[in-house]
Amino acid sequence: MIYNFEQWRGFESGTWTRDINVRSFIRHNYTRYDGDESFLTPPTKTTEALWEQVLALFKAEREAGGVLDMDTSVVSTITSHAPGYIDKSLEKIVGLQTEKPLKRAFMPYGGIRVAERACADNGYTIDPQLKEFFTTHRKTHNAGVFDAYTPEMRACRNSHIITGLPDSYGRGRIIGDYRRVALYGVDRLIADKQEQKETTRSAMYEQVIREREELSEQIRALEDLKKMAASYGFDISLPASDTKEAIQWLYFGYLAAVKEQNGAAMSLGRTSTFLDIYAERDLREGRYTEEEIQEFVDHFIMKLRMVKFARTPEYNALFSGDPQWVTESIAGVGIDGRHFVTKMSFRYLHTLSNLGPAPEPNMTVLWSVNLPLAFKRYCARISIETSSVQYENDDMMRITHGDDYAIACCVSSMRLGKEMQFFGARANLAKCLLYAINGGVDEISGKQIGPRYRPITSEYLDFDEVMRAYDDMMRWLAGVYVDMLNIIHYMHDKYCYEKIQMALHDKNVTRWFATGIAGLSVVADSLSAIKYAKVRVIRDENGLAKSYEVEGDFPKYGNDDDRVDSLAYEVIHRFMAHIRKKHTYRESIPTTSILTITSNVVYGKHTGATPDGRAAGIAFAPGANPMHGRDTHGAVASLSSVAKLHFLDAQDGISNTFSIIPGALGKDDQVFAGDIAVDLDACPTGGCYAPTLFEDLDTDHKDDGEPTDSIGN
Amino acid sequence: MIYNFEQWRGFESGTWTRDINVRSFIRHNYTRYDGDESFLTPPTKTTEALWEQVLALFKAEREAGGVLDMDTSVVSTITSHAPGYIDKSLEKIVGLQTEKPLKRAFMPYGGIRVAERACADNGYTIDPQLKEFFTTHRKTHNAGVFDAYTPEMRACRNSHIITGLPDSYGRGRIIGDYRRVALYGVDRLIADKQEQKETTRSAMYEQVIREREELSEQIRALEDLKKMAASYGFDISLPASDTKEAIQWLYFGYLAAVKEQNGAAMSLGRTSTFLDIYAERDLREGRYTEEEIQEFVDHFIMKLRMVKFARTPEYNALFSGDPQWVTESIAGVGIDGRHFVTKMSFRYLHTLSNLGPAPEPNMTVLWSVNLPLAFKRYCARISIETSSVQYENDDMMRITHGDDYAIACCVSSMRLGKEMQFFGARANLAKCLLYAINGGVDEISGKQIGPRYRPITSEYLDFDEVMRAYDDMMRWLAGVYVDMLNIIHYMHDKYCYEKIQMALHDKNVTRWFATGIAGLSVVADSLSAIKYAKVRVIRDENGLAKSYEVEGDFPKYGNDDDRVDSLAYEVIHRFMAHIRKKHTYRESIPTTSILTITSNVVYGKHTGATPDGRAAGIAFAPGANPMHGRDTHGAVASLSSVAKLHFLDAQDGISNTFSIIPGALGKDDQVFAGDIAVDLDACPTGGCYAPTLFEDLDTDHKDDGEPTDSIGN
Repeated sequence: MIYNFEQWRGFESGTWTRDINVRSFIRHNYTRYDGDESFLTPPTKTTEALWEQVLALFKAEREAGGVLDMDTSVVSTITSHAPGYIDKSLEKIVGLQTEKPLKRAFMPYGGIRVAERACADNGYTIDPQLKEFFTTHRKTHNAGVFDAYTPEMRACRNSHIITGLPDSYGRGRIIGDYRRVALYGVDRLIADKQEQKETTRSAMYEQVIREREELSEQIRALEDLKKMAASYGFDISLPASDTKEAIQWLYFGYLAAVKEQNGAAMSLGRTSTFLDIYAERDLREGRYTEEEIQEFVDHFIMKLRMVKFARTPEYNALFSGDPQWVTESIAGVGIDGRHFVTKMSFRYLHTLSNLGPAPEPNMTVLWSVNLPLAFKRYCARISIETSSVQYENDDMMRITHGDDYAIACCVSSMRLGKEMQFFGARANLAKCLLYAINGGVDEISGKQIGPRYRPITSEYLDFDEVMRAYDDMMRWLAGVYVDMLNIIHYMHDKYCYEKIQMALHDKNVTRWFATGIAGLSVVADSLSAIKYAKVRVIRDENGLAKSYEVEGDFPKYGNDDDRVDSLAYEVIHRFMAHIRKKHTYRESIPTTSILTITSNVVYGKHTGATPDGRAAGIAFAPGANPMHGRDTHGAVASLSSVAKLHFLDAQDGISNTFSIIPGALGKDDQVFAGDIAVDLDACPTGGCYAPTLFEDLDTDHKDDGEPTDSIGN
Repeated sequence: MIYNFEQWRGFESGTWTRDINVRSFIRHNYTRYDGDESFLTPPTKTTEALWEQVLALFKAEREAGGVLDMDTSVVSTITSHAPGYIDKSLEKIVGLQTEKPLKRAFMPYGGIRVAERACADNGYTIDPQLKEFFTTHRKTHNAGVFDAYTPEMRACRNSHIITGLPDSYGRGRIIGDYRRVALYGVDRLIADKQEQKETTRSAMYEQVIREREELSEQIRALEDLKKMAASYGFDISLPASDTKEAIQWLYFGYLAAVKEQNGAAMSLGRTSTFLDIYAERDLREGRYTEEEIQEFVDHFIMKLRMVKFARTPEYNALFSGDPQWVTESIAGVGIDGRHFVTKMSFRYLHTLSNLGPAPEPNMTVLWSVNLPLAFKRYCARISIETSSVQYENDDMMRITHGDDYAIACCVSSMRLGKEMQFFGARANLAKCLLYAINGGVDEISGKQIGPRYRPITSEYLDFDEVMRAYDDMMRWLAGVYVDMLNIIHYMHDKYCYEKIQMALHDKNVTRWFATGIAGLSVVADSLSAIKYAKVRVIRDENGLAKSYEVEGDFPKYGNDDDRVDSLAYEVIHRFMAHIRKKHTYRESIPTTSILTITSNVVYGKHTGATPDGRAAGIAFAPGANPMHGRDTHGAVASLSSVAKLHFLDAQDGISNTFSIIPGALGKDDQVFAGDIAVDLDACPTGGCYAPTLFEDLDTDHKDDGEPTDSIGN
């Protein structure tokens, strides 16, 4: 059926009027902007007054020890709370997670013990009846996972060879296409979901039954979304009719998601160019001024800055704030070569000036050599002024994800409404190498964790022997790891399903099965040392290899030296091959990432000495970085080593933490001229990365092998 | 590991000391009894005093309108209630479903609306927080099913072509092997379940994850069983040491099941010969007298008579009480030819004398020509005196189920601890024939329910044309029916899993996928009329066949006439063939039953006139019975027609309601001499059959197509 809502006046029609297809709407209607930032307007008086109140709330929150108020008896759902306001008279865009600003909602579906601890550690006590209920009658994701884990899985978790798994918290990394709410209104989306339900396969295999149930849940979530909006006085059953409504409708969609899910990353998508279409029409029609439009954007961004979850104090201690990864992907280029920069791209970044710098929302520029120069210059300026902009390589991601993808969390790319990710933390490949040498015995605890393969007993390590053993051990590790993730995502779907987020997806969603690895440069350098130098093993009285003496020099990863760079490539390629051999839940497609940003410190702490000469406990390099100080041939050589890693072997993202001092890359603005575009991961929260939290929590709350005690770790 | 508990003193060892194998224990240790009932003892003074109190409670309950008290704020679990007593000083066997005799527990897992209605209709209001919880956060079986049903399924349910489905109540029909609790003690059973969990398949496919989670749930249920027993002052971690303990341990196992599940049939199993082994040892050891043993049995049976669930007044109106189908299977013969009659077989039946007749527990004698004559005579006497004994054909069921099966509900046979059933109500095959004639249009509502196949338009029905159309329509019906059951059992496992009952099963359980049919004799006679007489169709103004005129006579089912009996055989055989072609949930094995006992009246009410001359609304014959009055060639001919149905096509049971007047079968006691043993279904509650309730409820609470309104029907 072809729709023609009056709210669509002046829009050019296309596939999007028949199907749910936001990309089609954008491509038919957006207006490129090649100009500079001179059109931007400062904050209005209202914005300033409102933001002052928010700042006061943030201050009060800090002074209260990090949390202003917490729910202890209301379980958060889309409709659980009465409308909340900062200052109703000033707010142009409304909606809070609870009935009070910064009051943290109670979200126990992921795990009652974590939810309880988040309250308890902040001095709040949850309703005992609710605790009983979520313990006895309403199982949580966490309880489900630990019911299915094997002793081997628990051992891998305790020994930190696999860690940071989303087994006691929301997996996140799913982005609802919130733009759909604004463009279509909820009734059209419900009709679409009903049609999807009518067209499931008709033989009732379990997968079909599950699909039908999920679609029913999604439809109910959309109905709830309407109710929630209605409580704020908005009827969002029909499309938004102007910029203000479009922002409000879109935000309601996002708000429903954060009312329902406390995911490790609750990203926003790619909304700016979409909204610009409404702004251009309003400017054309004289409905709103530039100043008014910027005010809506400022108020919207303010709301996104206020998104908070109930988390434990360890979280606050580790990070300056509590990151939610409200990632917004800005700009990028279309597959036809037209860039996506609009005035709204500027307006979004401009909030960093109007409201000041902030880690959230995580403003991410999808960088391309083909972005217009004025925009590149503006990005540079804002980056310099606020240190709050993240850049990612659109030219590379566009190949696999097209031109309507967005970033979830910090690097995970996915087509909006068409792809989602089963998030999967990381395996420690450096520790795996030590297991290969020690026949599966953990080098720190001395416990047999891996299989009882033959250990290497020679005084000097032989490269071929080590590689054979390492390959075997990686195969084992990949197997346990993938199966842990299979359990986690089965249980998350069962006990903590993302109803509203999936309601804003197509019916047939591509699922990425994201794994991750840590310790890449340590492994590459270790293998290089074994191959090109002589590595002597020092064993303890039980024959356990505890440290290594390297005799002679060897090529080190990070110097554009193929001898070692090829080893890094090979390790990822082999590990990924082992991952690919395993069954993955729901026909999901395995990927991996090389992505630690701060957790590399923790991984190092839990890993013994390595054959590259690194001592026990020393931090790994972050992500795909060379080990600190070993890249001695300059920035370009270092980046070249990283660039040799095959993106298709690590499609979930490769991060390289890279500081640039003036002059390192030539003349001042050459970097914006487009000749270098590696996927830098300039983390806006100062190098934090949500899952790191849970890796670190592991060290504080050891899984002692008992299911009850393990819940909540 | 071979165990040797001191509680097993004097028992002959066998496979059962190594594995969980109650059958092996029985076969190595039981003592056949060929004598008569003269050893039996009357009720003790204690029994009389206690029973008087129970009778007073029953009276008070009746006077209170059927329900004495109801829980409205405690959700029933194995450990939810403090210990309850009738009169602690008198009770030899203890344990009640709640803390007070006859207080109905609140069990919402199957469906919150049915649970709420059961309370509301008795004047009780459930805790609103609980209602909210089971509506918003803790989905029920019923809510899950309606999320997955298709519009076609709802239409089939509303038009009564498929009915009585367990989609809003507990499916029941699962028998825990409660004897295991007594023989092994709970700790040994937990160790066994832990070993099962350690030996699941190791690749984490969804089925494996589900299995691991279920085993974890089972282990927790066993731990809860110990806790519940401990609250009564019993440590059941070790085996029972004498008759009293064996009965108590076994009863605790059953009690845990009825605390956890409100199933349509909560049967007990086959416990009497098992318990006799303890009684024989106690008599031999001088530990207990016959009088004491009978007292334990009387008190145990008293408890079983008190099992009650919160149900709706429609239930009480339809039945004299509220049947639970606490079916106990007595006697039978082993596969080596030794009968299983023990003194305990007599003691169980003797409770009908000591306490008076009662519908519960449903005492079912597994009848064989090889039962000892004295026992047969005793059965006859008790049947005559109490009308409370059911008989089933052991000689037939033993072929497929061996010699340690029991009856769930009224006829469903299953190996104890090794087989379970997915219960599935019935399809109306007579209505299906009318759909074949009318091209899928319902003859009462005029709505298109089935597929738009070509209707039959001729004035006179042609047998071959009707058979082709009927076969097509049966294929369609089988498909919808099986898929509805696939949904129901998927959701029951997901939201209302029978933890403790499955904990008392082996790991690898055979699952029967039970379907059922209604209207067999109507169909057989209709097809016979079409084939052997002339059937003229009378159509309404829309061309809908509304009634039929039969010209001439035709052979009628129930007269041992192969011409029509073969049609009955053929219909079941074809329908079952269509059922077998469909995917069935969890690799379950399809069976069917021909089993209506009172619901045949309701089926008839919802079915238009049929080509056999039966008028619209007239009751069907029950089960596999000939239509009333059409079997004109005597009892043996009538029984012979039924006997021609192929048991392997209707392995879940064929019922034939059959009244015998003196002399009908020859001399007085010839029936007990063993030459006739059809599977008579002498229903002890006066012809009631639990699922019938829900069929009738359908007529009162029509599914109007909206999920919310359908919940609870």
